[in-house]
Amino acid sequence: MSLKTAGRLKRLREELAQKEIDAVFISQPESRLYLSGLDSSSSFLIITPDEAILATDFRYLEQAKLEVQGYKLLKISGDIENWLPGVLAELSLKKLGFESRHLSYQLHKHLTVITNQLKPKPKLIPLDRLVESLRAIKEPEEIELISKAAKISDAALEYIQNMIHTDIGERELAWQLEKFLREQGSEALPFEVIVAAGPNSAMPHHKPSSRPIKPGEPVIIDIGAKISGYSSDITRTICLGETDSKFNQIYDTVLGAQLAAIALITEGMTGREADGIARTVIEEAGYAQAFGHSLGHSIGLAAHEEPHLGPNSKEHLQNGMVFTIEPGIYLKGWGGVRIEDMVLLQDGKLQVISKAQK
Amino acid sequence: MSLKTAGRLKRLREELAQKEIDAVFISQPESRLYLSGLDSSSSFLIITPDEAILATDFRYLEQAKLEVQGYKLLKISGDIENWLPGVLAELSLKKLGFESRHLSYQLHKHLTVITNQLKPKPKLIPLDRLVESLRAIKEPEEIELISKAAKISDAALEYIQNMIHTDIGERELAWQLEKFLREQGSEALPFEVIVAAGPNSAMPHHKPSSRPIKPGEPVIIDIGAKISGYSSDITRTICLGETDSKFNQIYDTVLGAQLAAIALITEGMTGREADGIARTVIEEAGYAQAFGHSLGHSIGLAAHEEPHLGPNSKEHLQNGMVFTIEPGIYLKGWGGVRIEDMVLLQDGKLQVISKAQK
Repeated sequence: MSLKTAGRLKRLREELAQKEIDAVFISQPESRLYLSGLDSSSSFLIITPDEAILATDFRYLEQAKLEVQGYKLLKISGDIENWLPGVLAELSLKKLGFESRHLSYQLHKHLTVITNQLKPKPKLIPLDRLVESLRAIKEPEEIELISKAAKISDAALEYIQNMIHTDIGERELAWQLEKFLREQGSEALPFEVIVAAGPNSAMPHHKPSSRPIKPGEPVIIDIGAKISGYSSDITRTICLGETDSKFNQIYDTVLGAQLAAIALITEGMTGREADGIARTVIEEAGYAQAFGHSLGHSIGLAAHEEPHLGPNSKEHLQNGMVFTIEPGIYLKGWGGVRIEDMVLLQDGKLQVISKAQK
Repeated sequence: MSLKTAGRLKRLREELAQKEIDAVFISQPESRLYLSGLDSSSSFLIITPDEAILATDFRYLEQAKLEVQGYKLLKISGDIENWLPGVLAELSLKKLGFESRHLSYQLHKHLTVITNQLKPKPKLIPLDRLVESLRAIKEPEEIELISKAAKISDAALEYIQNMIHTDIGERELAWQLEKFLREQGSEALPFEVIVAAGPNSAMPHHKPSSRPIKPGEPVIIDIGAKISGYSSDITRTICLGETDSKFNQIYDTVLGAQLAAIALITEGMTGREADGIARTVIEEAGYAQAFGHSLGHSIGLAAHEEPHLGPNSKEHLQNGMVFTIEPGIYLKGWGGVRIEDMVLLQDGKLQVISKAQK
């Protein structure tokens, strides 16, 4: 078994033992990849204290034979009714966990029908963020891959400093950025590049349009790269030509909020407390209503992971977590400013992973 | 209200009336886009006979104001517990439908808690492929967009005929194809380009590697483009230099299976019957075990939609459906051949949408 997935399975099994659960049925794509090493659009894992089963179809079976170690491989086709009853009957379980945030109502119904026919009949246990909570604490190798992805997005932001000019369209600039990211080694991008200029930058998730960039207006650029499945995510807001006092005041407020959060967030804080540090700075500057999203989100195999840092987030931040710090101010008609970096919580404090100039 | 979404809402409401359901809660991303016109990572629709409500957060609200017509817009934040009880209380429903294949176990639990507290208490009704079945029958405007996307992937396959050469790596060729597709107007690709050469082509969903393409071996190229949200999907298998008799025999078998399916599939057949036409050709040539996936899948706002055409598919094919026909033969150690085109079922018969040379 590969060292990587062996360690992850060990931690998962410790969690299962603590919860007194016999086995877990894993269907969430990034969690499957995390535990097995197989990147597929369709597979299931069944993990018990002694066994690890990967069920996948014809399309991925040869790939699994090459890439997956330590799992019993099962070739499946069609619905879970076709193969799961046999697998579960052999395991003879008392309690079978499943991913409550991921499994659909319908698959859960099927699982209920299947388990009702077994003797002994396993009890189905909904598990909230079981693998997600393991994924939240990054291993050194994961931090290295995230840092590599961050280096590429840093380089892309430096690259555009030299090539951006007034009248280039948002979409054209986004495409130049994407090409650069890919040619520097990024896999398919973790999310579509955002380039939002002038009033468009008031929309946090604006889709790049043909609108040309004009001097003096805010331009939000939000990009990410992906290396061996691990993502980066970084945002800068720039202005071509002279900035006016409004831009400067808003920019400085957002930057101040971000730097305060980076300096003051410590281990053990809740996501809500962390968010509050930046939010207070923005509120005190009079922009309470203009910062409508959360301060940040964890990042790893998925571009958006849990825990996130927001007004409703009760989870405690722990050493080994990697997340974004991205406050913003958005004013309809004028535009917006967002500044986003990636940080690692280590030895109780934040280390900034992304290095692009602000 | 835009004509497009108005017609779709009308058809959805006819379905609801037939099922005697008061309202439906829509959470599936492409279905939200189909019904509202808003492409977002986070929103919910609630559709009743008289009302259409779109609930989304701060990040998408301004975009929704610009792009969505005929919906009451609701700004939400946090979990559905925060806003859904108020909305449902006002609607005073008897039966509330939800998407059983999409809604998670956990969201369904929350929905149950919320509706249990309402008077009258709405009954929750699981709906299987409600919007998906509307999406399956394409409107003329949708067929036009799919055809545009197909033209771009056709052009990409023509383009590589002129630039492919031995020793180019799979990944490099995939990237040249992707750049061409994007520069010809495709939005972010509907799926990652597949280039699989030699033994790698025995894996239907192989990820492009650094392996150089050699003369005389099969090379599977599977690409798609996207226009205004609508996807194309096409596969060709080529061989640089001389083909040997084994390649020719396998290629001709796959092509024969594909052409037979295209000629013989008619309206009213089940997906299983359609699949059987091609599968019989391949089985009779002695490759029954080597065609391990389905014959095809519907395509539209998602690259893979229902119904699909496979051994387990009981759905009947109807006029207005657009799907792929993509038989393949995969032999471990040697490689594979897959040929995929997109077709429209019209006036009872198939019309081929993709035109690239075979």
